[in-house]
Amino acid sequence: MAPRIAVVGATGVVGRAILGILEEREFPIDELRCLASSRSAGQAQLQFRGRWYPVGLADAEAFAGCDLALFSAGASTARALAPAAVAAGCRVVDNSSAFRQDPDIPLVVPEVNGARLDAGPSIVANPNCSTIQLTVALAPLHRAFGLRRLHLATYQAASGAGRALVEALRTQSREMADGRPPVAVAYPHPLAGNVVPGGWRAEGDATEEEVKIVAETRRILGLPDLLIGCTTVRVPVAVGHAEAVWAAFERLVTPEEARAVLESAPGVQVVDDLEEDLYPTPLAAAGTDPVYVGRIRADLGEPGALSLFIVADNLRKGAALNAVQIAERLMGIPAVSLTPRARTRPFL
Amino acid sequence: MAPRIAVVGATGVVGRAILGILEEREFPIDELRCLASSRSAGQAQLQFRGRWYPVGLADAEAFAGCDLALFSAGASTARALAPAAVAAGCRVVDNSSAFRQDPDIPLVVPEVNGARLDAGPSIVANPNCSTIQLTVALAPLHRAFGLRRLHLATYQAASGAGRALVEALRTQSREMADGRPPVAVAYPHPLAGNVVPGGWRAEGDATEEEVKIVAETRRILGLPDLLIGCTTVRVPVAVGHAEAVWAAFERLVTPEEARAVLESAPGVQVVDDLEEDLYPTPLAAAGTDPVYVGRIRADLGEPGALSLFIVADNLRKGAALNAVQIAERLMGIPAVSLTPRARTRPFL
Repeated sequence: MAPRIAVVGATGVVGRAILGILEEREFPIDELRCLASSRSAGQAQLQFRGRWYPVGLADAEAFAGCDLALFSAGASTARALAPAAVAAGCRVVDNSSAFRQDPDIPLVVPEVNGARLDAGPSIVANPNCSTIQLTVALAPLHRAFGLRRLHLATYQAASGAGRALVEALRTQSREMADGRPPVAVAYPHPLAGNVVPGGWRAEGDATEEEVKIVAETRRILGLPDLLIGCTTVRVPVAVGHAEAVWAAFERLVTPEEARAVLESAPGVQVVDDLEEDLYPTPLAAAGTDPVYVGRIRADLGEPGALSLFIVADNLRKGAALNAVQIAERLMGIPAVSLTPRARTRPFL
Repeated sequence: MAPRIAVVGATGVVGRAILGILEEREFPIDELRCLASSRSAGQAQLQFRGRWYPVGLADAEAFAGCDLALFSAGASTARALAPAAVAAGCRVVDNSSAFRQDPDIPLVVPEVNGARLDAGPSIVANPNCSTIQLTVALAPLHRAFGLRRLHLATYQAASGAGRALVEALRTQSREMADGRPPVAVAYPHPLAGNVVPGGWRAEGDATEEEVKIVAETRRILGLPDLLIGCTTVRVPVAVGHAEAVWAAFERLVTPEEARAVLESAPGVQVVDDLEEDLYPTPLAAAGTDPVYVGRIRADLGEPGALSLFIVADNLRKGAALNAVQIAERLMGIPAVSLTPRARTRPFL
């Protein structure tokens, strides 16, 4: 029998992306419950497979009879409700940071450490968007060459901060096009025509995002002491995170060796011909499933190290797709092949 | 007597910025000649100190009687005409790449190696925009601690590629705001809503910009073997380049030591309080003179190394202002103090 599924935070950017991806991948579903906080519950209806679904209140009673709950509703909601969902017999896949550093709860990128799902955990944590695309690209290189040190600068899309910032970016873009100064909304600085190396919560001299990338990358790759220098930057892009990455390994690696590894890596698509202006960009990646890797070359800052540029759709592989892939493996549902191009527009 | 000045490439983005900065800084001028290629000469008039100037043809005869020529007209024009300007008795400051690697011609950032001007060179090369802001921030750290290794990812504004890309970005931004897909113009990919890790000429697996940053930074800092890993990326920003930088030194450096050095460094303004969302951004830097440095912290990728975020107006300090500062020192004109905020809008 197909599972009965609850989507918690169904009205959010990632919640809607989860519904879209469940539909795209023809995930077998016996019953769907769209759940949200009291702010959205009862207000909205969500379309799924041509039917409209009411949005119910996400509370402890909402999971009775469900087999699977996909959470994308923030850490405090996850902490409050995931235990109730588990008690009701659900498997939980949580897209918040609530459980990502809990040693009893696996933090999973299916292409990297999907075997952690085979023990049948009741809760699985879905990593941070920036970390997912980074580890999909780096894990095969780590397996081949032994990762030793990492530096990365991010170019992160507005949708990673939710719909309000996407709307603010649109409004600001119109303001700029009309010759008016853009007004900061939903972020400490205007995002249109700007790049902002902050806006996440500060944890000392690091952004919360930088702290997450370091801790989650170490955990997923099983390298608790990995040296990672990281600067996170928000850019005026709606969908698609990019990362300029430098990686040093236990042995000297050539770009040709790296390219060969990446070309056969699961979930990775190499786009790399600078002469032909072929490299990954967020605009091309938005609405598609792969993690794109390009600009593969020697790091001239460290002999034998590599320089890479990694791009993925932050709402799909960075969030909803990774959660649905986890759910597929948890529920024993065969994964469909990756969509090379979106069947739909980016989820926004 | 005040110098007679020729501005070559006067109708371009940087040429107009040079005129604006000469005006702002009340540079003493006895006579001004605005010169351009046959495409623009005779067509346009340029305003300077409330007067309109015709645009003359930049040819070998145009420099007779001039004392100073400020070139911003590309490398082939510089190679063709700078010798004629010198023969006519001009000092030349050239903003192209033509002479930047010529060992007989100094490559100067006044705050870094301005003493190279005191010998009275006939031609001075103005560095690449990305290199200028990088070396203004790094030179004082190098002097204090001995620079050993550098990694940087850039966030470069459209204006660095000229007016056509700024116009294309505006058009594409309107297209996106109207829900239409942006069309690539003046660049191999759309820039609105995108980040593009290329678009410069390819030199093997590096962009021409990456090659320039490596070669020019080494030359200006006097470190011919400095290890520099660099990825250049164009972002949908009109004015203002940003750089995420990691720097390792001969000795272990603390962020506090680095901040103290940067706070007294010429041309640098430290903007660094993450808790208060204070860090440099291109939108705030555009139209102003300083090189802004923020996000000053330990590089968690390498013990004792530093992580920085460096931003400057690429048309001002990255091009026109640096050229005018060179000209001031060459001609023995006292430099005015930096403008903390623009008196005018960004030059565009």
